[in-house]
Formats: sequence, C-alpha cells, structure tokens
Amino acid sequence: MRIVIPIFDGLTALDAVGPYEVLRMLPDADVVFAAAAPGPVVDGAGQLTLTAGAAFADVDSADILLVPGGPGARRGVDDPALVDWIRRIDATTAWTTSVCTGSLLLGAAGLLEGLDATTHWSAVELLEAYGARYTAERVVVQGTTVTAAGVSSGIDMALTLAGMIAGRTVAEAIQLAIEYDPQPPFDSGSYAKAPQEVRDYVAARR
Amino acid sequence: MRIVIPIFDGLTALDAVGPYEVLRMLPDADVVFAAAAPGPVVDGAGQLTLTAGAAFADVDSADILLVPGGPGARRGVDDPALVDWIRRIDATTAWTTSVCTGSLLLGAAGLLEGLDATTHWSAVELLEAYGARYTAERVVVQGTTVTAAGVSSGIDMALTLAGMIAGRTVAEAIQLAIEYDPQPPFDSGSYAKAPQEVRDYVAARR
Repeated sequence: MRIVIPIFDGLTALDAVGPYEVLRMLPDADVVFAAAAPGPVVDGAGQLTLTAGAAFADVDSADILLVPGGPGARRGVDDPALVDWIRRIDATTAWTTSVCTGSLLLGAAGLLEGLDATTHWSAVELLEAYGARYTAERVVVQGTTVTAAGVSSGIDMALTLAGMIAGRTVAEAIQLAIEYDPQPPFDSGSYAKAPQEVRDYVAARR
Repeated sequence: MRIVIPIFDGLTALDAVGPYEVLRMLPDADVVFAAAAPGPVVDGAGQLTLTAGAAFADVDSADILLVPGGPGARRGVDDPALVDWIRRIDATTAWTTSVCTGSLLLGAAGLLEGLDATTHWSAVELLEAYGARYTAERVVVQGTTVTAAGVSSGIDMALTLAGMIAGRTVAEAIQLAIEYDPQPPFDSGSYAKAPQEVRDYVAARR
C-alpha cells in the first residue's frame, strides 16, 4: 500500500505528520514524502524542516494520496506543476485525501466539484469557490475522496480511513499504539465552540 | 521563550510535532530542534526525516525542554551524551516536559525520582525503574515537570502547558488555530478502553 504525501514550503507539519503516524501502521504501508525536488522543505512557521525522499516527477501513482495544508497550500493553488501532479496522481488512487487547507489544492485540481468537503474553518469561502459544498464536519467521506477539517483533524481522518481500508480491529490497534484518547484541557477547538474573545484573538493575529 | 526539542534517530515524529504546533504559537516562541549533530534525523518507522538545526553542544539552556519518545528514546537511555545533556538543560528550564517514552530519558537523567509521571502504556515498568510513580493520566504536572502519555497525548500536554504559561485565552486560541476538537471514530485510545482483541493484536506486533 503506497501512501504518497506531497510536502512543500509553508506546509503545516502536523497536517502531514498526524495522519502519517496512523497510516504508516497499515499492513504493508510504504510512505513516500514527495516534493518538487528531493530534499528539505520548511514548514509554515519556518522552524521545522522535513525532507522529501522523492520528486513529484518520480512519483506517478499512489494507493493513498494525502495532501496537507498550511500557508504553502493556499499559495500552491497557483502552482500548476503541483496542481497538475495532484490531478494526475488522483487518477491512480484508491483514496484521495486532504487535511486542513490541503483541500484547496484538491479543489484547484478540480477534484471537489459538486462534492461535500471540509477544510480549516478560516478557508470555507476559498473551498466553495472550487465548487465544493462546505460541510461543517471534522471528516467528510465522499466516495473515495476524504477531506478533513483543520490541522489536528487529520488524525481522526486517518483513523477513519484505516478502518475503511483494514477493518476496525486494525484501526483500533493503531489508535491504541498512538494512545489517541484525547482529553483537551479546553473546549475551543472548533469555531462554533470557541468563545468570542478567543475568535477575536485569533482574528487579530491572522 | 526558547523551546528546545531534542530529536534523535528512532524518535516518534508525532511526539515532537504535535506539541511543536502548539508551543510555536506561544508569544515570542523560538523553537530549536537539536540533535547530536545538526542535520537529518530519521524517525522510528524509517520513513520520515526531520532536520536538526543545532547540535546539543551548541544549546546550553531552554525555557521549555520537550523530550519526545519512540524506539530511539528507549535506546537513548544508554547514551550518556544525550542523558547528560538533558540533565544540564533541565537545570536551566522553566518547564521540563516529555511525551510518550521521552519520560524514560527524563528518568535516566534522574529527573523523575519520587515524582508522579506518565508514559506510553507499554513502558510503565521501565518508567518505575527510575523511581517515578507511574500515574495513569494523560498529562501529569509535578511542579515544573510535565509528562504526557503515549504519542498523541503531547497535544493535550502542550495545550495544558500553554494555558499555564500564557493564560487560558491564548491556549484556547491555539486550540482553535489547530482546530483541535477531536472526534476519534473509535474508542480504543487507552489500554483500559481497548478491547482484548485489540490489545492482543498490538502485542503480537510489538
């Protein structure tokens, strides 16, 4: 099972690494981090560097395509090389997935037209501009296209996907292996739940 | 606020990247990924490469020390250079923290003697051998030492820490920014909750 994760400067690392830690434990998983060129990729905060092991040009198929988001994804919609590659790989996949604003890249590739989909709460209008129907859920499955909401939601998405691919016992074993029994100390993890002062704080810093 | 994250071959990437995405958003956060030498570090699955920007020898203090786990942490307890460096940095920190089996490195450095602490569910006896009192909680705060349970618990730990450092509104804003409103599709994220067949599946593969 070949899992391909495109990475690019300005990605949000957790968008990629959260689902990676789940999907890499699927039976026979083989994960490829791909970028425009093999080598270093710097995250959106400019403080963490991941390494791509392959160039997009050297990857021509995937069983699972997982597209992360971040400021680099918002910019990436204007990069025909990235968008065209995503469209080509999607034609070969069993599952095409995104986390956070990675959905904008799927949208730019024309893959969300007429589909229910989700994204980071701050990117709803951008998503809808690609013809997707924004759905305020954490994980949205539409056929073989699976989109997740912001950043941390990729873990829920990947466990959902693991269950569909390998069955409930395997997915639960992965959940146990990463001890995913979340207990957030606060309850402001969605725009609907966050107090107004928290929304204002985030808005002032965007 | 200087946040230092030691990385080493065989780490579990999510242990580091989950809390990183939270703590990097603290006001004036400056994150340093440090390793024995600057350059590439390969995770425990052998499929993801992070990059250290600094050598341990070049880092002599931290406001927050965050020690990730993974197979490399279990091995690292026998690496005096790593363990001694952790002990030296701890003497300078406001907060010393670990995720998953990163707590074994704190233990090997003599930092958990007589303290309540937690770790991955599979490492309880190893933790207790360092004189810690294992506590079956997701995040354990003992003075300025904060330990987290397995892998994904680092996100809960970091949000807890963010609240103590910067106050509730800032921590809630970070939670909203990473849209951390977890909705696991299954409920086997702790050893206590996991069905026996799931425990058996994990045990057979360890």
